[in-house]
Amino acid sequence: MIIMLKQNPDKQEVEKLTSMLEKENVTINYVHGKFNDVIGLVGDTSHLDENTILASSDIVETVTRVSEPYKAVNRKFHPDDTCIDVNGAKIGGQHFGVIAGPCSVESEEQMIQVAKAVKDSGAKFLRGGAFKPRTSPYAFQGLHGEGIRLLLEAKKETGLPIVTEIMSIAHLDLFNDVDVIQVGARNMQNFDLLKELGHSNKPILLKRGLSSTMEELLMSAEYILAGGNKKVILCERGIRTFEKATRNTLDLSAIPLLKSKTHLPIIVDPSHAAGIAALVEPLSKAAVAVGADGLMIEVHNNPKMARCDGDQSLTPLQFDSVMQKVKFLASVENKIM
Amino acid sequence: MIIMLKQNPDKQEVEKLTSMLEKENVTINYVHGKFNDVIGLVGDTSHLDENTILASSDIVETVTRVSEPYKAVNRKFHPDDTCIDVNGAKIGGQHFGVIAGPCSVESEEQMIQVAKAVKDSGAKFLRGGAFKPRTSPYAFQGLHGEGIRLLLEAKKETGLPIVTEIMSIAHLDLFNDVDVIQVGARNMQNFDLLKELGHSNKPILLKRGLSSTMEELLMSAEYILAGGNKKVILCERGIRTFEKATRNTLDLSAIPLLKSKTHLPIIVDPSHAAGIAALVEPLSKAAVAVGADGLMIEVHNNPKMARCDGDQSLTPLQFDSVMQKVKFLASVENKIM
Amino acid sequence: MIIMLKQNPDKQEVEKLTSMLEKENVTINYVHGKFNDVIGLVGDTSHLDENTILASSDIVETVTRVSEPYKAVNRKFHPDDTCIDVNGAKIGGQHFGVIAGPCSVESEEQMIQVAKAVKDSGAKFLRGGAFKPRTSPYAFQGLHGEGIRLLLEAKKETGLPIVTEIMSIAHLDLFNDVDVIQVGARNMQNFDLLKELGHSNKPILLKRGLSSTMEELLMSAEYILAGGNKKVILCERGIRTFEKATRNTLDLSAIPLLKSKTHLPIIVDPSHAAGIAALVEPLSKAAVAVGADGLMIEVHNNPKMARCDGDQSLTPLQFDSVMQKVKFLASVENKIM
Amino acid sequence: MIIMLKQNPDKQEVEKLTSMLEKENVTINYVHGKFNDVIGLVGDTSHLDENTILASSDIVETVTRVSEPYKAVNRKFHPDDTCIDVNGAKIGGQHFGVIAGPCSVESEEQMIQVAKAVKDSGAKFLRGGAFKPRTSPYAFQGLHGEGIRLLLEAKKETGLPIVTEIMSIAHLDLFNDVDVIQVGARNMQNFDLLKELGHSNKPILLKRGLSSTMEELLMSAEYILAGGNKKVILCERGIRTFEKATRNTLDLSAIPLLKSKTHLPIIVDPSHAAGIAALVEPLSKAAVAVGADGLMIEVHNNPKMARCDGDQSLTPLQFDSVMQKVKFLASVENKIM
Repeated sequence: MIIMLKQNPDKQEVEKLTSMLEKENVTINYVHGKFNDVIGLVGDTSHLDENTILASSDIVETVTRVSEPYKAVNRKFHPDDTCIDVNGAKIGGQHFGVIAGPCSVESEEQMIQVAKAVKDSGAKFLRGGAFKPRTSPYAFQGLHGEGIRLLLEAKKETGLPIVTEIMSIAHLDLFNDVDVIQVGARNMQNFDLLKELGHSNKPILLKRGLSSTMEELLMSAEYILAGGNKKVILCERGIRTFEKATRNTLDLSAIPLLKSKTHLPIIVDPSHAAGIAALVEPLSKAAVAVGADGLMIEVHNNPKMARCDGDQSLTPLQFDSVMQKVKFLASVENKIM
Repeated sequence: MIIMLKQNPDKQEVEKLTSMLEKENVTINYVHGKFNDVIGLVGDTSHLDENTILASSDIVETVTRVSEPYKAVNRKFHPDDTCIDVNGAKIGGQHFGVIAGPCSVESEEQMIQVAKAVKDSGAKFLRGGAFKPRTSPYAFQGLHGEGIRLLLEAKKETGLPIVTEIMSIAHLDLFNDVDVIQVGARNMQNFDLLKELGHSNKPILLKRGLSSTMEELLMSAEYILAGGNKKVILCERGIRTFEKATRNTLDLSAIPLLKSKTHLPIIVDPSHAAGIAALVEPLSKAAVAVGADGLMIEVHNNPKMARCDGDQSLTPLQFDSVMQKVKFLASVENKIM
Repeated sequence: MIIMLKQNPDKQEVEKLTSMLEKENVTINYVHGKFNDVIGLVGDTSHLDENTILASSDIVETVTRVSEPYKAVNRKFHPDDTCIDVNGAKIGGQHFGVIAGPCSVESEEQMIQVAKAVKDSGAKFLRGGAFKPRTSPYAFQGLHGEGIRLLLEAKKETGLPIVTEIMSIAHLDLFNDVDVIQVGARNMQNFDLLKELGHSNKPILLKRGLSSTMEELLMSAEYILAGGNKKVILCERGIRTFEKATRNTLDLSAIPLLKSKTHLPIIVDPSHAAGIAALVEPLSKAAVAVGADGLMIEVHNNPKMARCDGDQSLTPLQFDSVMQKVKFLASVENKIM
Repeated sequence: MIIMLKQNPDKQEVEKLTSMLEKENVTINYVHGKFNDVIGLVGDTSHLDENTILASSDIVETVTRVSEPYKAVNRKFHPDDTCIDVNGAKIGGQHFGVIAGPCSVESEEQMIQVAKAVKDSGAKFLRGGAFKPRTSPYAFQGLHGEGIRLLLEAKKETGLPIVTEIMSIAHLDLFNDVDVIQVGARNMQNFDLLKELGHSNKPILLKRGLSSTMEELLMSAEYILAGGNKKVILCERGIRTFEKATRNTLDLSAIPLLKSKTHLPIIVDPSHAAGIAALVEPLSKAAVAVGADGLMIEVHNNPKMARCDGDQSLTPLQFDSVMQKVKFLASVENKIM
């Protein structure tokens, strides 16, 4: 951390500031410049806040962080890729994993049809929403406990591990048999939920918030790892920008950049990002090419009757066609599917 | 809602679509155009989703909503301003109310000093964070229950009703004696929390999310009102944009626009919006001039020692100076403080 | 400028880097840190580029600019406010100036009617577009030279100095009798145009680009001042964000922030920012309260027949009503109108 | 275009509005709804402006465009892909073309070295900036005419057609021997420049503006085609968002979406988008996979000594490695390189 002082700082104030900083368990370098003096802090500064230091003294002009504020998720300290393994279904490292299923769980027939179809096409995980975060209180909110029961039926039938979203700590008991717990974009900074999931032993699929920076995504993952749960899968699903031709703007640059910063696996959700079924194939292919560790794709046995997000869902047939291309490109990238 | 069909739609598909729509309790106008046919839906369409209709048939080209998807918060159906009254401290209608206090509750001495000072300057509510949403798990997270106890001490001393943020339903019991419950920007779409607060009888201060549209803010308020709780105060606190010179971009246009759409009161938080103490005065004045119903301002007895956000906090003296100007401008606007 | 080196940098590379930097006319402070070494550059670094330095050596980890890259517009070196005076019509310092008129010049009758009306209400400058930047090539593009002739007729009639937009250096000759040349948001980084206007002796009204940072706005102004023309008025007119309820998001925080950084006057254009006539009054009042030096407001004698932007134009009567409130608030701010 | 009227509109006002619309050469459908009446306009509405209609009458509630405002670039009217052919170097249709070279032309030695290298690796066009749009007036602005001369030397040596950016109509004469004229992101809405290039017979490489929507990009291309020049290549180069970890956010979803809307070829510039050399390879691969028609990549013989953007430039060796992967993926996509 680099603290630039204002010109001609009061000596007493400088002493106050440095003695305050000395208590923070960091090494202090004081540099006399021609115009401005600079204090360099060396060591672990992840517990320090730039704004708090800026506010702490009148003689501080700017505070600049030069090392990352995250530790457990930082690749610097854990150079090897983390691979999440759920009964042999793997995401991360050399393993490219595809999660597929409907936006929301609607019926047993639907879930079993979709589960069988996506398994046949090569998906390794089944997704389906039992708790649905909807902008409108009047929109379909999901089948809740019954939805999880139907997911488990489909798991029993196909053996696919299931991924479903949690919206509140209060429902945690219902997730006992869920294989991967998803934290949705709107809850990426629901810190109490993250803390609680830090004490879980289940893999967590953490989606990037609509307006969250990559660093904030890593800090939210850090909340989970700091609690003891090392099994986090990150998911890029589009950010909110001025462009309205797609629902969100899929930030594929985030994949290689995040992979350089963290050892955690990163997957891409092209369905929610674009909100347009026709874009799922090109974006899925791009996700493989850019280095993602997996995909999360919406598949519905009858998109026209879907109770939400039908316009972005693929039919099982369309999904199978996407998977042919994904498998080929993944093999080009030396990924195991 | 207006549904434009693709050119030369299949007649059977048209029939399927219209018979499906007829079940939705709306009146259907079918218009034969020279190139495209159009179906107009008239009536309450708040339960319908544009994307679901778009996906429901191959013959649909576009779906456009022309009426607002919110009802309980809509000024059309409730033309009179809502005024929130907490033991005589009022926000909304003719009443301009100021909420002030530190970012986080730190000690009894701090809270009582600040509470007395802001009351003397004209604040009607005391704020202070007991649960703090922090990007980093290593940053100070607040005093939790003890923080609420200290707020109540300060209330006992000054009579000021207290406003504090809830981060999880699990803590709801701790808020029994809190006067106004704040939902922070990061939880604006924590729908389970909103539903729960819809069953509360306490006023809710709902902050706009960092990347939430005005319509989404109204829909989140609708969640609370739909649950039965009519006492919601909206709060504009800056949105996330490409501009980094201020922490967020305060969207003051939202004030008059929201006031034309809803009867709920709307206040402005210039402290979090800008993240710069020197901007609090000009932005507070602008907020009054643009028609806000109140302000929420951070005040700390010793900003240099604040455990968070010290760089945006005012001293009691600075706050008093801001309040002189705010009071004058509020009187110009015929507002009662 | 602060250059942090990677850990254990190669000594020869360090020498290469420092000897390269020594040629740049800055003083170099080399600091040995516990983990990373840091090089501080002191002096005028406005000619240096962070990215170029970052790229220049493998041993550089980060480069951080700590002083502003602009000089001529910087308040540090010119503490007194600049006031633009056009034959007694003033903007800046203690003077609050209002520019009003139609979006586009349409006819002599229109211009003279509007000019008389806005003068009566207290406007000090007349605006009107002769060259119109339109997204569509099929939309009305303005009357060009004839438009400027009509503006000059209105000036002859009323004495109001005229403000009109230039879109290309090729038209510069047509602007000989124009009083203030406007550079539109889309041309804020048309650097060749800025350079040419730097050699003009006319005041330049420089509008902030739709996605330009405050620093970029100042750098564009710096282009003009660097050419010798010191007469620049900045204009905030809304930035592009995810929010679509208003055409753009008016960034009123930019006013006090820019005023702390530069001595140039700053005005606000509420008409283009919101794109909604009903928001012009509250935003104009907020602009005065936040510290702006003036306003630019669209007024049309018959908004319903306007050839562009009629939905954001005020009638002369509405404008007069806004001006009553603006004058009062300006007097509260000790501004002369 | 769909015009929804306010409730209970005045009959005279309705007649006024419809008679005004009848003059616009469109067919009018008037629909009586239960609550609101709706007017549908059928035919070519590209000359009509939503806001102008909205403003034209007090009885209009909303105006919604349902057909695209662009014609010449619209795939609906020109279903076949456009392929740009410069002496056999092709971009578009089945042809995947790579443009490579340094950010700015610096010396003859540099240009010839780079030109030979990129040709050997498979690039079909040589790029290099002679006129550089720089945020700071104090930064290197390019070699101008001398820069173009050096590009032509490199062309003579290698036969590669050259691509270079124009910043002002005033320099047009210098571009007589340039093969492809680039319009940079900052000039995407410099409409006078676009109009002038509409009269040229040279291919135009049109880069998307930092905050321009896809529709605005197409409208800017429409300016060029409307002038008679059909040879336009679109280029996605990243948009400005809140995320600062990359210079811009590369919007790869724009590629398949734009290809569905227009017949013009679309290439991707991963160098400017990310601003980070290490991201060029993954983003180039993703661009091929997502369906782009080409790439524009910065290559410098000595990035460490580059006068601008060295941090995003590849060495010829790195470029060759990227090209191996791009060629393979392009062949997978059945593209000819």
